[in-house]
Amino acid sequence: MNVAVVGATGAVGEAMLSILEQRNFPVNEIFPLASSRSAGKSVVFNGRSLEVGRLDEFDFSTVELGLFSAGGSVSAEYAPKATAAGCIVVDNTSYFRNDPEIPLIVPEVNLHALDQHQGIIANPNCSTIQMVVALKPIYDAVGIHRINVATYQAVSGAGRRAIEELAGQTAALLNGKKPAIEVMPKQIAFNVIPEIDSFQDNGYTREEMKMVWETRKILEDDTLMINPTAVRVPVFYGHSEAVHLETRDPVTAAEVRQLLSVAPGVTVIDDHTPGGYPTAVTEAAKQDGVFVGRIREDISCDRGINLWIVSDNVRKGAALNSIQISEALLDRM
Amino acid sequence: MNVAVVGATGAVGEAMLSILEQRNFPVNEIFPLASSRSAGKSVVFNGRSLEVGRLDEFDFSTVELGLFSAGGSVSAEYAPKATAAGCIVVDNTSYFRNDPEIPLIVPEVNLHALDQHQGIIANPNCSTIQMVVALKPIYDAVGIHRINVATYQAVSGAGRRAIEELAGQTAALLNGKKPAIEVMPKQIAFNVIPEIDSFQDNGYTREEMKMVWETRKILEDDTLMINPTAVRVPVFYGHSEAVHLETRDPVTAAEVRQLLSVAPGVTVIDDHTPGGYPTAVTEAAKQDGVFVGRIREDISCDRGINLWIVSDNVRKGAALNSIQISEALLDRM
Repeated sequence: MNVAVVGATGAVGEAMLSILEQRNFPVNEIFPLASSRSAGKSVVFNGRSLEVGRLDEFDFSTVELGLFSAGGSVSAEYAPKATAAGCIVVDNTSYFRNDPEIPLIVPEVNLHALDQHQGIIANPNCSTIQMVVALKPIYDAVGIHRINVATYQAVSGAGRRAIEELAGQTAALLNGKKPAIEVMPKQIAFNVIPEIDSFQDNGYTREEMKMVWETRKILEDDTLMINPTAVRVPVFYGHSEAVHLETRDPVTAAEVRQLLSVAPGVTVIDDHTPGGYPTAVTEAAKQDGVFVGRIREDISCDRGINLWIVSDNVRKGAALNSIQISEALLDRM
Repeated sequence: MNVAVVGATGAVGEAMLSILEQRNFPVNEIFPLASSRSAGKSVVFNGRSLEVGRLDEFDFSTVELGLFSAGGSVSAEYAPKATAAGCIVVDNTSYFRNDPEIPLIVPEVNLHALDQHQGIIANPNCSTIQMVVALKPIYDAVGIHRINVATYQAVSGAGRRAIEELAGQTAALLNGKKPAIEVMPKQIAFNVIPEIDSFQDNGYTREEMKMVWETRKILEDDTLMINPTAVRVPVFYGHSEAVHLETRDPVTAAEVRQLLSVAPGVTVIDDHTPGGYPTAVTEAAKQDGVFVGRIREDISCDRGINLWIVSDNVRKGAALNSIQISEALLDRM
């Protein structure tokens, strides 16, 4: 299969190339693509250095699969062109996610919806993906009425320049210099910022509303109540989430632990002893799974369950999920 | 007034000395004290260098006020000795906080309870203090039924060695070295850790249960339901909290904003525009106030209100609150 990676020089594009390689995805020819600004740079695939091509000059009829991760406006323009040329697009931007005609897929959760695709499949937001992977087994077993969630999101979710900004600000501060603030809305080094994406009229940010819209679409349940606060933290890779659930039927922490211990894509680390839970750096970064710990019955609510959910936002939250979708497409060909 | 500062070389003790100075607390003689391990070191007060004395050799009958912040076991042993010698103790450890005979005071919230003191007054936990300062006006106006809270707590809450560990780990990682893990349960640099204090039988940590026990005691309401997840973040100074409230009576975000804008000790920064909210580093660190932003009506719950609450955990969360209690004691003398 010939594959185009659109946005190949970004944090997610780079992870896509390395995951295609690691998982032995049946790539015949690969075409790393980017805007004219980044075209001409090199990326590595299977030990070969490849020059990044210009997206605006690329002929999508030469590939069967396009993995898009170069921003919503790029997907808006080029995904329809790619599908018109017969290429299937797995799109990692938010552009198509809320389109009712376009499936929004997390393979462990709603692979059945893939069958409805008409050329474009949307990959959900990173903070949504890891949450629904952990919640799906609970949702199926006892139902979920409401979710309170506070996130601890790594800077890599904002792209390569945000990673560089955290590193640069941290180095500046350790050397007694003033940190430059260019990408994040405020200093992110040694700080936390409750602003991800733009503010909406209802006072939530767009990142928070993505968790609402996308979780409902993936679980196919518009009655699901979700109340997120999304926060950026000075972590390079790995999103963490404090999730406080209200289920429809009663369930114990032990039952939830059992459900999650056999759930696809989930690793339970939950010992209620020092260190007995997952964290971004120590457990989740560079791993494929969604890690869950701190499972406990909510003392404030009869049908409440608390969870701590951690995953590598660039892998399961973006690149890996897109490639799992692509593998499922292959199976259906 | 003669004042002893017990734990004078710690992060909170040092802040106590500087706040006593800044607020012109009527100090006649000051006695910085510590364990034999730290005794002999120097601290600065009003431009003078003072030698830190040994707590175990100190005669508390020579002082009227003792500010304790040297750990629960130290307070357990020496606070009763101090009161027996006629010294009033304001204790910043958790040792006496749940004792029904001992008032637990946040001056903006429950100063009336100070009158019941019998020599010892307890200072609440940092994460509790900033939350109750922000919630009290809402509690009084419309009642509060339930609180979901996720915290983003600075390492200074774990003392000076934790501050040094974050700095040391960060420097090591930026230089490509392996970070040493000695104080925190896992690597804290570029990571977040959902473990503060020891695990309890119910799966919550003691830090989380402190927020439950202490908030109920301060607001004098055992029916208040509280569900915390307490998390350490790689921030030096300033705790942040994502608080999702369920009130008893309906209230709008605009009404909450109005209530908080005139509340003692609270500063509202809430613009729903980029940067229009408080953060630990930019707004709260080294400040006295409790800062509130991200005020919005909860889309998942009829009587829900969300808040983002930030304060300097070493100042309002510890040293400043103790000194405000001391000032109130002075007023009553």
